[in-house]
Amino acid sequence: MQHLVGIVGYRGYSGAELVSILRAHPHVRPVLMEHRADGDGTGDSVIRVGGAKPLHEIPATTEAVRAEKIEIVCLATPAEVSMQLAPQMLGAGARVIDLSGAFRLRSVEEYTRWYREPHTHPELLAEAVYGLPEFCRDRIARARLLANPGCYPTAANLALQPLTEAGIIDRTAGVVCDAKSGVSGAGRKPSLKTSFCEVTENFSTYSFLNHRHVPEVLMVSGLEEAELSFTAQLLPVHRGILETIYFRAAKSTGAKDLLSIYEKRYKGEPFIRIHDAGHAPDLRAVAHTNFCDIGLTFDAGTGRAVVVSAIDNLVKGAAGQAVQNMNLMLGLIEIEGLL
Amino acid sequence: MQHLVGIVGYRGYSGAELVSILRAHPHVRPVLMEHRADGDGTGDSVIRVGGAKPLHEIPATTEAVRAEKIEIVCLATPAEVSMQLAPQMLGAGARVIDLSGAFRLRSVEEYTRWYREPHTHPELLAEAVYGLPEFCRDRIARARLLANPGCYPTAANLALQPLTEAGIIDRTAGVVCDAKSGVSGAGRKPSLKTSFCEVTENFSTYSFLNHRHVPEVLMVSGLEEAELSFTAQLLPVHRGILETIYFRAAKSTGAKDLLSIYEKRYKGEPFIRIHDAGHAPDLRAVAHTNFCDIGLTFDAGTGRAVVVSAIDNLVKGAAGQAVQNMNLMLGLIEIEGLL
Amino acid sequence: MQHLVGIVGYRGYSGAELVSILRAHPHVRPVLMEHRADGDGTGDSVIRVGGAKPLHEIPATTEAVRAEKIEIVCLATPAEVSMQLAPQMLGAGARVIDLSGAFRLRSVEEYTRWYREPHTHPELLAEAVYGLPEFCRDRIARARLLANPGCYPTAANLALQPLTEAGIIDRTAGVVCDAKSGVSGAGRKPSLKTSFCEVTENFSTYSFLNHRHVPEVLMVSGLEEAELSFTAQLLPVHRGILETIYFRAAKSTGAKDLLSIYEKRYKGEPFIRIHDAGHAPDLRAVAHTNFCDIGLTFDAGTGRAVVVSAIDNLVKGAAGQAVQNMNLMLGLIEIEGLL
Amino acid sequence: MQHLVGIVGYRGYSGAELVSILRAHPHVRPVLMEHRADGDGTGDSVIRVGGAKPLHEIPATTEAVRAEKIEIVCLATPAEVSMQLAPQMLGAGARVIDLSGAFRLRSVEEYTRWYREPHTHPELLAEAVYGLPEFCRDRIARARLLANPGCYPTAANLALQPLTEAGIIDRTAGVVCDAKSGVSGAGRKPSLKTSFCEVTENFSTYSFLNHRHVPEVLMVSGLEEAELSFTAQLLPVHRGILETIYFRAAKSTGAKDLLSIYEKRYKGEPFIRIHDAGHAPDLRAVAHTNFCDIGLTFDAGTGRAVVVSAIDNLVKGAAGQAVQNMNLMLGLIEIEGLL
Repeated sequence: MQHLVGIVGYRGYSGAELVSILRAHPHVRPVLMEHRADGDGTGDSVIRVGGAKPLHEIPATTEAVRAEKIEIVCLATPAEVSMQLAPQMLGAGARVIDLSGAFRLRSVEEYTRWYREPHTHPELLAEAVYGLPEFCRDRIARARLLANPGCYPTAANLALQPLTEAGIIDRTAGVVCDAKSGVSGAGRKPSLKTSFCEVTENFSTYSFLNHRHVPEVLMVSGLEEAELSFTAQLLPVHRGILETIYFRAAKSTGAKDLLSIYEKRYKGEPFIRIHDAGHAPDLRAVAHTNFCDIGLTFDAGTGRAVVVSAIDNLVKGAAGQAVQNMNLMLGLIEIEGLL
Repeated sequence: MQHLVGIVGYRGYSGAELVSILRAHPHVRPVLMEHRADGDGTGDSVIRVGGAKPLHEIPATTEAVRAEKIEIVCLATPAEVSMQLAPQMLGAGARVIDLSGAFRLRSVEEYTRWYREPHTHPELLAEAVYGLPEFCRDRIARARLLANPGCYPTAANLALQPLTEAGIIDRTAGVVCDAKSGVSGAGRKPSLKTSFCEVTENFSTYSFLNHRHVPEVLMVSGLEEAELSFTAQLLPVHRGILETIYFRAAKSTGAKDLLSIYEKRYKGEPFIRIHDAGHAPDLRAVAHTNFCDIGLTFDAGTGRAVVVSAIDNLVKGAAGQAVQNMNLMLGLIEIEGLL
Repeated sequence: MQHLVGIVGYRGYSGAELVSILRAHPHVRPVLMEHRADGDGTGDSVIRVGGAKPLHEIPATTEAVRAEKIEIVCLATPAEVSMQLAPQMLGAGARVIDLSGAFRLRSVEEYTRWYREPHTHPELLAEAVYGLPEFCRDRIARARLLANPGCYPTAANLALQPLTEAGIIDRTAGVVCDAKSGVSGAGRKPSLKTSFCEVTENFSTYSFLNHRHVPEVLMVSGLEEAELSFTAQLLPVHRGILETIYFRAAKSTGAKDLLSIYEKRYKGEPFIRIHDAGHAPDLRAVAHTNFCDIGLTFDAGTGRAVVVSAIDNLVKGAAGQAVQNMNLMLGLIEIEGLL
Repeated sequence: MQHLVGIVGYRGYSGAELVSILRAHPHVRPVLMEHRADGDGTGDSVIRVGGAKPLHEIPATTEAVRAEKIEIVCLATPAEVSMQLAPQMLGAGARVIDLSGAFRLRSVEEYTRWYREPHTHPELLAEAVYGLPEFCRDRIARARLLANPGCYPTAANLALQPLTEAGIIDRTAGVVCDAKSGVSGAGRKPSLKTSFCEVTENFSTYSFLNHRHVPEVLMVSGLEEAELSFTAQLLPVHRGILETIYFRAAKSTGAKDLLSIYEKRYKGEPFIRIHDAGHAPDLRAVAHTNFCDIGLTFDAGTGRAVVVSAIDNLVKGAAGQAVQNMNLMLGLIEIEGLL
């Protein structure tokens, strides 16, 4: 049996990645959903021989969703578009996976503070399930509206939450998360900041302690705002997020002890890979995969630890995690289409 | 049923790509074959949780091939190593797919001229089948020793052969093939020429009319040596080959006529994509795929044509084409594991 | 004595390069000329300590040019803006160096054909001097309106003109010029085609025989349109143009003979470097310099030759050549500020 | 008058940068000093026309230094070569600027601990002057043996020292220095880790708290080892170092107060640029310059601060700073050849 899954925003980088993963998924038939007549100006040429079959394309309307019996609609759209479309798609009987930040936070106040715009559908914030599968599979499986986690918080929380849960972080000294992202994280809309000539052979800081993903990190990791320093920086690469996390241990410990916290917490997890002590992950190993790689070092003399967490921002940080959540929501095997 | 396929040279770029494709192949179980204790010096760290299962590993010996009942051995090794291993593996009862240039040419003289070293197993040159599936599926299916085509000749011949066959090229004016390749084409062995600081923000010519792939282009395309100018240039990208081919039409024609030569020739081909007239392919669209994309333009006033051909040098130019050949040799569906 | 030289369009890549070169010029004081209040949206932060002194800034008006006694106005602006500003600046008593294509061609018909828009000041086409210093220093020195050559034609003509002059090219076989350019050649205005994620790890053809620089190549090289195949392709680098030029020799010759054509023609030229036979230039060696590097190979058996020409598109292909022309116009030493 | 300055190791990236800066220096004549017959294998082609005049070349021997009256010898060599050559060159009457780590630390014990090899000339450690011009111009001017600072410590200390001096850092919470470097910092010797295909589209951690530059940071900044977490990471760029530094303020302060610490400390410094509050420097702005750009943000609610420091590792982090030191040693204007 083939499940029908619609994708709005399929021309963006996350949306296109989602289409690409779902095309190869054995139990899903992806359907392109056209939201606006927003030509992308690239003048893609027609392919006259060979290549993959074109996908079915419908408008992103309630009528089309009902008529085509779309089970799940994935919104790879900006938050303001998701806020508008999500209630419509739910109203048409579909379940919704939203890849934007529209439904990730718990309160209207928090949303307004960090996204600097009003929330037009606060009634959905309570219902939305935050979909980090490693932490809440049951709720995800039953979700009607799933908020797919942000790319930075995914890498941060998979590294931080086991440590805060184990009480191993000395919170009085604070936690530093120095995050670096590839350019696709900024979306496909042209801008000077993401122009090739501005990015290549460059490295720049674009969010100095005030990134809108900070509240997601706090929400899942359990850290307080005063305990976390988070900066977001732009790497001259297409895809990938690597976060270097610094903290001081709350008690006497060692690299092996820290590793065993992760090993216990993530035993059996298909998409978490833990490196040997002293070895840090890199972007290459996670590119085009749904893995989150974690590595660490610990200096016994000073009690200082460094944890490095790496994901592909378009896969585990967006489209891959959306498919992982979709598999759970549809009762399919969680890794289907992802390994 | 799972076919056992061994890979020698799995640490190189082509070999690693082959392992990666075969891991996901539904009817093949890849086996790593260790040829030398050539540590690659990267100190890969052990992964402690998650990730893919480690593959079975055996020595690249006749005993091991017999004991493990390896059906096909893929040699992703330099030509001199392939010349040594191919007869051994054949002697042990395995069929061989060789990704090097050792068995692609038809005569010892030609080999010696272009590779500048003697050929140690001339008796195998006559038997070896040159494996460009679009041109000779039957012979490939029966091959005991398959010579997988070079990356440059694959892109060149898929574009040129239909044109020479149709007699549309004015050979008196000559054919220019301006070829550009990503750095992985040079292999994984460190050298100053492939160092990051020498390649990034650079573009350089490394073969001026005398590339060892030239005889393969002549052999398949049917052009004479005096008719072809071929240069190989280094692009600051990881993977991909794009060749820009220039010729003058032998008779009155048009872009549509030229396209229809390709459309007729490649009708039903799963891995050839022909663009609309006036649209050229790029590397992005073929990266990580087994496609060869072809596009062209024609200037009626002057009779000049330009054809652009693009492939991923590690996939259609090496490992992907090897798997395509392997599927044919094993009687499997040709696209299995490749789409 | 300091000459006052104004720069309009100083926020673009060529304009900024021009400012940077002129800042270090011992006999020139650059003046920024504001044409439109076109904020570039990057929010450049104020520098509070150290750094270079801010430059004087005036509006790009006839009044300001007269009041400030600007001797030369450099227009690093699009052709339509240059067509509008050039007559104004000339009217205000300044000489003009235009970096756009507005005044490079000889007739309105040619301009309209290749630039696909009408020419609003045809009376200036006759007066404008095409400023390739290696070919016409005297006329440049006296020019009131100087048309700075395009980047592609500079690299092409410096390689081609000595050959056509020497009659060494077999024109019946045609000449191929396969040109590759860095992204800064497309200007600073954001677009999808020049976005980092579209360009990195990619290589694409963007002009298939119909580039607007073609008539400039024909005008200087002396080739006929029917004899030249020219394509323009986009390299994933910031700066640099490399052109690979293919032709067949008209008579019996050799690499040494071809080199000696260049050596005689360019003897004493400060910015032309000729490589030994068989060695091709690359982009690295010309980056951030005003050099044009030329190398070649010749196959005696077939009579085919390949010439490679490399420049920095922002220096010898734009701002550097403009300064070279400016030096000639002001009676300064030609290499001042450029070596 | 022209001072004669020799460069050993001129084929490496720092050495070549030094030659390039000194070629344009108005009061210095650079002399290449050949240490070993270490051909670099690139087969540089002879330039037959144009280009810069070849430099004078002598062997790196005491005889040649005496005969040619070399005033200063710059060693752009590995630490073990510098340890061997420095005493020889001093013995021949030259002053020495060493760009390696051989003479930067204060004791043999420290050297042995961090460089993991014995120091063969401990007697020179006491004499060597650590050459960070912003901190000790007088001693530099008189130095016979100058230890040019490491690239990472230069960026770190220019940002940290004014803060520790002002007592504004809460040392109990520790300081994090997350450092990123371009690939040229690893030198020119080919290795898998600096191969294009391994670096492009990647980002990796290569030193986890144990970088040999750590003691230099401690020595100048005045931090204790237990207070500093330092990691070194590899950026896919040719040149540039950016360090993101995190700390908590020891007392009530604000971004303006922090900025004024830098403004007072660096008033009149030619190579330090301080950005407005909330603006971080990037690599682009310092590439090919001797500037160190510093920017910061401060969160009043939590007392957390982030400082970003950026330099070109080959200029302010190596060759440029060496020339700055050389100018001081020769009694020249400090910025000569550098602006």
